[in-house]
Amino acid sequence: MPVVEVHLIEGYDDAEKQRLGTALTDAVRSVVPAGPEAITVLLHDLPASDYYRGGTRRTPAPALPDPADLVRAYLAAMEARDLKKAQAMLGDGFTMSFPGTAPMRTLQELMDWAAPRYRFVKKTYEIFDVSQGADAAIVHCHGMLNGEWPDGTLFEGIRFIDRFELKGGRITKQDVWNDMGEVRP
Amino acid sequence: MPVVEVHLIEGYDDAEKQRLGTALTDAVRSVVPAGPEAITVLLHDLPASDYYRGGTRRTPAPALPDPADLVRAYLAAMEARDLKKAQAMLGDGFTMSFPGTAPMRTLQELMDWAAPRYRFVKKTYEIFDVSQGADAAIVHCHGMLNGEWPDGTLFEGIRFIDRFELKGGRITKQDVWNDMGEVRP
Amino acid sequence: MPVVEVHLIEGYDDAEKQRLGTALTDAVRSVVPAGPEAITVLLHDLPASDYYRGGTRRTPAPALPDPADLVRAYLAAMEARDLKKAQAMLGDGFTMSFPGTAPMRTLQELMDWAAPRYRFVKKTYEIFDVSQGADAAIVHCHGMLNGEWPDGTLFEGIRFIDRFELKGGRITKQDVWNDMGEVRP
Amino acid sequence: MPVVEVHLIEGYDDAEKQRLGTALTDAVRSVVPAGPEAITVLLHDLPASDYYRGGTRRTPAPALPDPADLVRAYLAAMEARDLKKAQAMLGDGFTMSFPGTAPMRTLQELMDWAAPRYRFVKKTYEIFDVSQGADAAIVHCHGMLNGEWPDGTLFEGIRFIDRFELKGGRITKQDVWNDMGEVRP
Amino acid sequence: MPVVEVHLIEGYDDAEKQRLGTALTDAVRSVVPAGPEAITVLLHDLPASDYYRGGTRRTPAPALPDPADLVRAYLAAMEARDLKKAQAMLGDGFTMSFPGTAPMRTLQELMDWAAPRYRFVKKTYEIFDVSQGADAAIVHCHGMLNGEWPDGTLFEGIRFIDRFELKGGRITKQDVWNDMGEVRP
Amino acid sequence: MPVVEVHLIEGYDDAEKQRLGTALTDAVRSVVPAGPEAITVLLHDLPASDYYRGGTRRTPAPALPDPADLVRAYLAAMEARDLKKAQAMLGDGFTMSFPGTAPMRTLQELMDWAAPRYRFVKKTYEIFDVSQGADAAIVHCHGMLNGEWPDGTLFEGIRFIDRFELKGGRITKQDVWNDMGEVRP
Repeated sequence: MPVVEVHLIEGYDDAEKQRLGTALTDAVRSVVPAGPEAITVLLHDLPASDYYRGGTRRTPAPALPDPADLVRAYLAAMEARDLKKAQAMLGDGFTMSFPGTAPMRTLQELMDWAAPRYRFVKKTYEIFDVSQGADAAIVHCHGMLNGEWPDGTLFEGIRFIDRFELKGGRITKQDVWNDMGEVRP
Repeated sequence: MPVVEVHLIEGYDDAEKQRLGTALTDAVRSVVPAGPEAITVLLHDLPASDYYRGGTRRTPAPALPDPADLVRAYLAAMEARDLKKAQAMLGDGFTMSFPGTAPMRTLQELMDWAAPRYRFVKKTYEIFDVSQGADAAIVHCHGMLNGEWPDGTLFEGIRFIDRFELKGGRITKQDVWNDMGEVRP
Repeated sequence: MPVVEVHLIEGYDDAEKQRLGTALTDAVRSVVPAGPEAITVLLHDLPASDYYRGGTRRTPAPALPDPADLVRAYLAAMEARDLKKAQAMLGDGFTMSFPGTAPMRTLQELMDWAAPRYRFVKKTYEIFDVSQGADAAIVHCHGMLNGEWPDGTLFEGIRFIDRFELKGGRITKQDVWNDMGEVRP
Repeated sequence: MPVVEVHLIEGYDDAEKQRLGTALTDAVRSVVPAGPEAITVLLHDLPASDYYRGGTRRTPAPALPDPADLVRAYLAAMEARDLKKAQAMLGDGFTMSFPGTAPMRTLQELMDWAAPRYRFVKKTYEIFDVSQGADAAIVHCHGMLNGEWPDGTLFEGIRFIDRFELKGGRITKQDVWNDMGEVRP
Repeated sequence: MPVVEVHLIEGYDDAEKQRLGTALTDAVRSVVPAGPEAITVLLHDLPASDYYRGGTRRTPAPALPDPADLVRAYLAAMEARDLKKAQAMLGDGFTMSFPGTAPMRTLQELMDWAAPRYRFVKKTYEIFDVSQGADAAIVHCHGMLNGEWPDGTLFEGIRFIDRFELKGGRITKQDVWNDMGEVRP
Repeated sequence: MPVVEVHLIEGYDDAEKQRLGTALTDAVRSVVPAGPEAITVLLHDLPASDYYRGGTRRTPAPALPDPADLVRAYLAAMEARDLKKAQAMLGDGFTMSFPGTAPMRTLQELMDWAAPRYRFVKKTYEIFDVSQGADAAIVHCHGMLNGEWPDGTLFEGIRFIDRFELKGGRITKQDVWNDMGEVRP
């Protein structure tokens, strides 16, 4: 039934603090089998004049975006074929891998590759799983695909999973798996 | 450059504390864009006689197993076809879904399903991503499959990803995606 | 020479914090034989956005009334025979016991019982002692009674002690002892 | 749902810490209407080499005895007429007041005063209420008296309440009220 | 890589807190060989209503002046021969000692003593070293003297060091050493 | 009446902690005009397994020597003309400056320079003042010299002050001022 105190320089808004509160609670729960109710998180928000490192004041960096929110916005832009908006969320060195194809580097490559494979595809999400790795935030989302094959027939209920790496608030890697190969006509 | 203090009842070993130290550091880094060096975690290990909730002493529950370690051990047992050992790691209500098949409930079902599909399969792992959800720990691992088709030809370099849910230190759900459908002869 | 830190959600006023500061100081002094000067109490008042339990924000409940103040107000109302005001301070299941009588449940019962025993009675208080029990706050006050017997003679200097139980800010039990039986004409 | 941290020099045993844990929980509950479960108390036991006041190390004083335990022991000794044992628990300037008598200073005075009033008396306790005042610990206990009048008849069910002041682990004042005057034959 | 937390009653301004942040960092570094970056200082500024000693609120005393700033101002006033301004910075029992002379008690004594020794002298400072003693703050400053001898020739590059004791924000002692005796014509 | 908490990795001995306790108390007193009694320092000694920076455990560096003790030992070695012992306490780039001479780099230079100036000299110390600068510990000591001139006459009561810089536990700079030039025969 642990108590977590965090001392940080003030400057984070309520939503960012809520994410921190949840992330710390989950961090404890990944090791200690306590019910959520048993875990208390206390944030001590310090004005910049109350925090010193090496005797020097610091300026807190703006919070990183919520990784799941960013990925949701990217997937919505892709589904709407708003490549410009989606492109703005990508970081340097972005690559993406889809079933049965070599890694691609631009969204246009993906569009070209997909054109003969389906007329459109939509995703229904079951869950977004977020983890923090050593140097990237990782988002996995899985659910079901529905859409239209090139011949005009519709499909639905095809399982998919996407994995995203985010660095500095940008998507740098997307890997996609799905069951299209099992069911493609 | 946040400082995290955790007060908990003593009883966790060095490896469990290391996991806690890492998880808390990652939790902060999921919101605050600080380099790892800028995040300090302090554990205050309290003897049971120094912790009271409602004026009553408590006994700390044993730590949960490392989710990635548990999944690794399960996958190794499955690869070695040691069903008994793998079975022992499964929780109540376990289900698993593989490409192109309905959910299965027993490992034997999986064995039977796989028998006509490949003679054996081995996995090479690129990474294990662990996240903590509201009521389950989630492990994703992805990498490459190699093995032997029923006709005796070998295959390799087939992408896969597995997603596991763990509750109370047992695996309760496994979902598998891979590119076999794209390349199956 | 202990230092006490309390982390609580903000919302308590200065007087309520003063009561908390005093109660915590006294709590330490009930075990540790330190002079009051040696005990420091620090309250860390956290905005609701800085406190999480189970990853969820909480709303602090309004402070309980000061038990001694509540009892003082009740006794003043009774002395002024303002039964309506006194009644409003009583909780469900209220009972009171006086010397030589069965438990009573209403203030009117008390009035009826006292009528033939004295014309009026006033209390002078020496001290109010407050303690916190497992499920009730306890107030004891003792001092001297003065008043007028039915025959018109005055009395004074009769020792009394009252014991009150308070739950949820209401008086649920009153027990009265005094020396009237020793001196009653 | 407050969290209380106490920093103190080590040297208190498990029972003393339990008393401190309970007293601090009760102190919070006297102001904040939280259920006991919502209050966490953390004791940080510091070796003497980790505590400095004015740059100087300190030696913690031995804990005070539990006031209720001390009073219980005193009352048991008195009931057993072990005056020597009871006397050893009294502090300088001890006084006691009983119904209808002037303050007494020695236990022998009490014995002499009681001799013609009852042959023996025993107490049954309902509760011990402990509070900490500015310079004394206060214990109230109340319950029922039973015993034998000088004429050999027995009595029982007579209400009583005792109030004790304790300083430095010794009883310095005892005040007794009861309903004997109401029922004395 | 220590973390220092200070709990103090609010009322100190940014510059005073900066001095405290630096002084605490240096205090740690005087024992622990950590780079400044490795030392974090957190100030917890408590409103007066959140701090209790002996159950009583306290008023924080105004900060002491920066010892080096005070000494700099005094030396500037002396160099400008503004004795009135300099005098106002001196505390009770002030004494000063210069090379080859008995202790003096007034600034005028110094002026009279110096008159036949040099026409004027100016100081160039290399560093101000500040330490806190048991009952005084100590400032040492050293550097070079330049000026004019009584015969009108100029001098420069003569080493000097001053030591000051400050109590309660006033200078109570000044000791001066220099190499004039080595080079005086 | 501030409370200072320090969280550090265990490994410092009692004497080193005492130095830390004193240094932190003095640091607070350099800004806050509180009596020493009003300042509490609490050291939280964490086992290495309870401290994480960037999710990684750390090894605490051995404490720096007490600067005043080191300087005392050096001065004693010099007075005893034990150049080898004194030399071992000097750091890279050591320089020393004496009245009326250019900076010297070796102790032998000093011996040679002093030979024609006095037969021997002894120091009586009034006080050692220690301060911690940005990248060096500073020790000043002052007091009186006594000794013997080359002509065999004795001298005493000559004021001196030494200033030392210490880096990494070695002396890197010594500056000496005294009144010999004022009184030299």
